[in-house]
Amino acid sequence: MEPTMQSDAVAHTVMDRCEILSRYSEEPDRLTRRFASPALRQACAAVANWMQAAGMTVQSDAIGNLIGRYEADRTGAKTFLLGSHLDTVRDAGKYDGPLGVLTALACVERLYHQQRRLPFAIEVLAFADEEGLRYHNAYLGSKAMTGTFDPRLLSLIDADGIAMNEAIRASGCNPDPQLLQTPRWQRDELLGYCEVHIEQGPILESRNNPVGVVTAISGQKRFMVDLLGQAGHAGTVPMNLRHDALCAAATFILATEALAKSIPGLVATVGQLSVQPGASNVIPGQVTLSLDVRHQDDVLREQACQQLYEQARQISEERKIRLHWQLLQDDPSVVCTARLVQLLEQAIQQEGYSVDALPSGAGHDTVVLSKLTDVAMLFVRCRGGISHHPAEAVKAEDVAVAIQVLERFLLLLS
Amino acid sequence: MEPTMQSDAVAHTVMDRCEILSRYSEEPDRLTRRFASPALRQACAAVANWMQAAGMTVQSDAIGNLIGRYEADRTGAKTFLLGSHLDTVRDAGKYDGPLGVLTALACVERLYHQQRRLPFAIEVLAFADEEGLRYHNAYLGSKAMTGTFDPRLLSLIDADGIAMNEAIRASGCNPDPQLLQTPRWQRDELLGYCEVHIEQGPILESRNNPVGVVTAISGQKRFMVDLLGQAGHAGTVPMNLRHDALCAAATFILATEALAKSIPGLVATVGQLSVQPGASNVIPGQVTLSLDVRHQDDVLREQACQQLYEQARQISEERKIRLHWQLLQDDPSVVCTARLVQLLEQAIQQEGYSVDALPSGAGHDTVVLSKLTDVAMLFVRCRGGISHHPAEAVKAEDVAVAIQVLERFLLLLS
Repeated sequence: MEPTMQSDAVAHTVMDRCEILSRYSEEPDRLTRRFASPALRQACAAVANWMQAAGMTVQSDAIGNLIGRYEADRTGAKTFLLGSHLDTVRDAGKYDGPLGVLTALACVERLYHQQRRLPFAIEVLAFADEEGLRYHNAYLGSKAMTGTFDPRLLSLIDADGIAMNEAIRASGCNPDPQLLQTPRWQRDELLGYCEVHIEQGPILESRNNPVGVVTAISGQKRFMVDLLGQAGHAGTVPMNLRHDALCAAATFILATEALAKSIPGLVATVGQLSVQPGASNVIPGQVTLSLDVRHQDDVLREQACQQLYEQARQISEERKIRLHWQLLQDDPSVVCTARLVQLLEQAIQQEGYSVDALPSGAGHDTVVLSKLTDVAMLFVRCRGGISHHPAEAVKAEDVAVAIQVLERFLLLLS
Repeated sequence: MEPTMQSDAVAHTVMDRCEILSRYSEEPDRLTRRFASPALRQACAAVANWMQAAGMTVQSDAIGNLIGRYEADRTGAKTFLLGSHLDTVRDAGKYDGPLGVLTALACVERLYHQQRRLPFAIEVLAFADEEGLRYHNAYLGSKAMTGTFDPRLLSLIDADGIAMNEAIRASGCNPDPQLLQTPRWQRDELLGYCEVHIEQGPILESRNNPVGVVTAISGQKRFMVDLLGQAGHAGTVPMNLRHDALCAAATFILATEALAKSIPGLVATVGQLSVQPGASNVIPGQVTLSLDVRHQDDVLREQACQQLYEQARQISEERKIRLHWQLLQDDPSVVCTARLVQLLEQAIQQEGYSVDALPSGAGHDTVVLSKLTDVAMLFVRCRGGISHHPAEAVKAEDVAVAIQVLERFLLLLS
């Protein structure tokens, strides 16, 4: 089934808006939009305008999340949540996050133009931090909105030496720990949360499906690993007397890759690495690196992390290097709510597409929202499974399908 | 033989002055003194004062080298050169460089206090750049002084985006290419150059000798290596579909270590490494790293570099990653001048110590000076062979021996 003319036009508006938002960046030649940055504030302002034009009342919360509310057809109704995040990774694509906010907005826009209200209110949420780029701590936005924000995070320092509470204040918001720990809703006020997101993987493309229903979101652990060796002159310390922290790191990186390759479904990544002192003629004395480990099976992921720690310990011991191993983040896997998953599947079928159910290897705001309400996710096919990269791409016709399915889902929910 | 009371006191002055100079740093808690930095200018000003007090006429050249001249006992005499450099690596020790300048100054000071002139003039040189930390290009100071400076270097950019010619101008010097290519002396005006330097290796300590004569300085090649893979989401791209630039770099780092360990006397070091995009949840798309390779045998070193390139090429091919391999520096080995080496050995024997001859694994300004005049080097024992590190240490009694030997050497040369 082809998308209708109308959903096609709406999809193009969504694509155009993704383009517009991609220009709000902290860096001139690439898209980087960190938490509490001026670029994020500009993106929020643009979305707020579109929300208002779609008949929504708009507000911003203490941490900078944007909320557009579309009232129900009756008073005292519950609320259903839609949305995603507006922050990005460094050198990001245009769709990871914004697509979820803008497809949700498009659905409300269509309801508004049809002068249609549902028996529940809809809130479209645009979270201020999901990627965790700035403070190496993901989901700041959804945590503050659900009352699960840890106020100790406020003293974290970014790469420019700016503490989180200062950054929040500088962005015109309010780092009051009390506010940041207060959930926006009580559990019984909510009907659930549904997030549209690009797949960020190659599965839908390989099966030739425009959209897919997420069954579960893989849990994730993040570590910061320090390897402390001995700096020295690159020309005079013989190879056999060195305690090169970068050689130790290299051994660990390859051990990590090998372990992840040996366990189906496991992904493990060293994405950040810095060397001290960092001169071409000095043996590296210290290396700090990040480690990100994901698998949908909590037990299996935990075992893999223990194996990796054991590897790091052995490598450090053999090379007479000190090891600091610090857990930064630990999110168990989240299973999507059966009732909502079934409704999404029904919506896909009614729109004439075949149901494709798959796990998510990436974390999403859905993980945090699941602590407060029922959750579901709809994936949109993306080109080559590429994300977190400027080459990230989705087709307008797939976006049209996502909008149709989400709209149908909301009607089924009514 | 114990050092005399007098040389002991002079050695303590040298030690004190090394301490004083170590406080001129660009960073509050560690010693980092890059080329053309305010910290370097301050260190030069302190040395200039001591030079003047030792009866020397002082001047600074177009690139910021400091020159103290102690005239001969006659007109038309030739000049003998002493000295070393005042710039440092990042998080440096106190002696690598300054010790050579200050022992030379101490010898002139002793001559001046004895109201003694030699049949040749002495110039004490304090070079503005030997380590190459700021522009990844070593020996800027001695190259400018000997007329071997390549003016194309003036457009190199440092980590803060400052071009070398701007940096030179900002430091109060003159980046005129003509001046920077004009040698300070003609070959027949010079008698030679002798540099005192810490060994930066463990050999003298292991043989229980305070000083040693350098036979040759190992040649050195430096490369900048770029590995261009494919960035992607750390949670969704399966391990077998990744083109992780950091995993490729890790493989290369370990291959480099293994090759260097397999060839006696070869040292190879990856001292700098940067990852792009550099976020914990993004697969590394690009890695840039430095490679430093040294061996006293030019043919053997060249072969090793070719093997390392071949390794990098194979690793890149296997991982479907693009490789950029750029030669930044290529210095052949330098054999010290037999006549001066023999005089140094004679001086050591006359002062009552046993002669220890050894090659230098580190590059020195002596390499560049060898293109213009005869050269020799005297190594001073250092603790644990440690250098390019705050733990760098020498004993005052070893410094006293170095001063005695250098003074004896100058008298023998007379």
